[in-house]
Amino acid sequence: MKLTVSTRGFTDIIDISSDVRQACSRVDVNDGVAHLFVVGATAALSTIEYEPGAVADLKAALERIAPVDGHYEHNEAWHDGNGYSHLRAALMKPSLSIPIVEGRLVLGTWQQVILLDFDNRPRTREIHVQVTAVV
Amino acid sequence: MKLTVSTRGFTDIIDISSDVRQACSRVDVNDGVAHLFVVGATAALSTIEYEPGAVADLKAALERIAPVDGHYEHNEAWHDGNGYSHLRAALMKPSLSIPIVEGRLVLGTWQQVILLDFDNRPRTREIHVQVTAVV
Amino acid sequence: MKLTVSTRGFTDIIDISSDVRQACSRVDVNDGVAHLFVVGATAALSTIEYEPGAVADLKAALERIAPVDGHYEHNEAWHDGNGYSHLRAALMKPSLSIPIVEGRLVLGTWQQVILLDFDNRPRTREIHVQVTAVV
Repeated sequence: MKLTVSTRGFTDIIDISSDVRQACSRVDVNDGVAHLFVVGATAALSTIEYEPGAVADLKAALERIAPVDGHYEHNEAWHDGNGYSHLRAALMKPSLSIPIVEGRLVLGTWQQVILLDFDNRPRTREIHVQVTAVV
Repeated sequence: MKLTVSTRGFTDIIDISSDVRQACSRVDVNDGVAHLFVVGATAALSTIEYEPGAVADLKAALERIAPVDGHYEHNEAWHDGNGYSHLRAALMKPSLSIPIVEGRLVLGTWQQVILLDFDNRPRTREIHVQVTAVV
Repeated sequence: MKLTVSTRGFTDIIDISSDVRQACSRVDVNDGVAHLFVVGATAALSTIEYEPGAVADLKAALERIAPVDGHYEHNEAWHDGNGYSHLRAALMKPSLSIPIVEGRLVLGTWQQVILLDFDNRPRTREIHVQVTAVV
């Protein structure tokens, strides 16, 4: 299955939990694993308590780790200005696996699945959601 | 399967390799993958050479990346003081997948599986261990 | 399956996409997931646009996060000088899962799979590639 998510870019952090849950509900599996993967070299997946404070803190930390206006060799070569996007994506990684137990996606009460789009323009992102069954 | 681990919080880093190995040994699979996931928005999983030096170095690095006493919007809103915990967890991520080959979990000799509990109080953590079989 | 990759160490970043693609092509699966895992406590896996600029930017960021010449308790105890390698590996993590759809590994056009070898000497690395089928 494939989710399609429109983003604003610029480290847009989007709660995709309900989309992932809905996709998994279409699969007839009791105990399994949902494997998520965002296609592209300037995005990533993780989990967070999705409230404005924690999301702002994550953006601020990524700005410290890989500042938008930092010096990037990628920008020198390609002049597309998204060197920081590539760096953030490589550090955060594009895959995430979440358990399905008794037919339900297992997340903490305050734990949501997030797509992080680091690119410096709006994008339409494809996230693969694949369910495998436990032995 | 589910591991239950008591932690002291405050970036408690616990070697869970033998628990994971034991859980996997209950599954009759020759070639497979063990998928681990820690429930909650203030913990993460990784691997490390579990010796006091490397563990201390990881704690020190996380303190540089997301200082306990840093300014966090999450703390401003919720006053629970664990903004740094949410940030560390989102950066380190809750899932990890480890191969099972010839019925045994594959790790390097000096590579142990760790639970990192970033919360600012002791917690009881649930880690799902799910084994899928290779095609 | 197991890939064997010779590295130069010292945060050698190697594009292993074609090796992974070749390994997966040996498995008869239409829709599945390729689970990758690098054995050892001083290496990691991720994806990046594999061009010299972005690769140099990732190396520079890792040098800021975990400097080669930083102070590490690991080095104090073991005198092997690769404390930074252990730290980088624990932060970046050894596992990565990539979709297989219609028999092909799904990656973005500019998204390559990378092995990062952080050790302070050349190494021969083993990367497990395991394919599981979607329900």
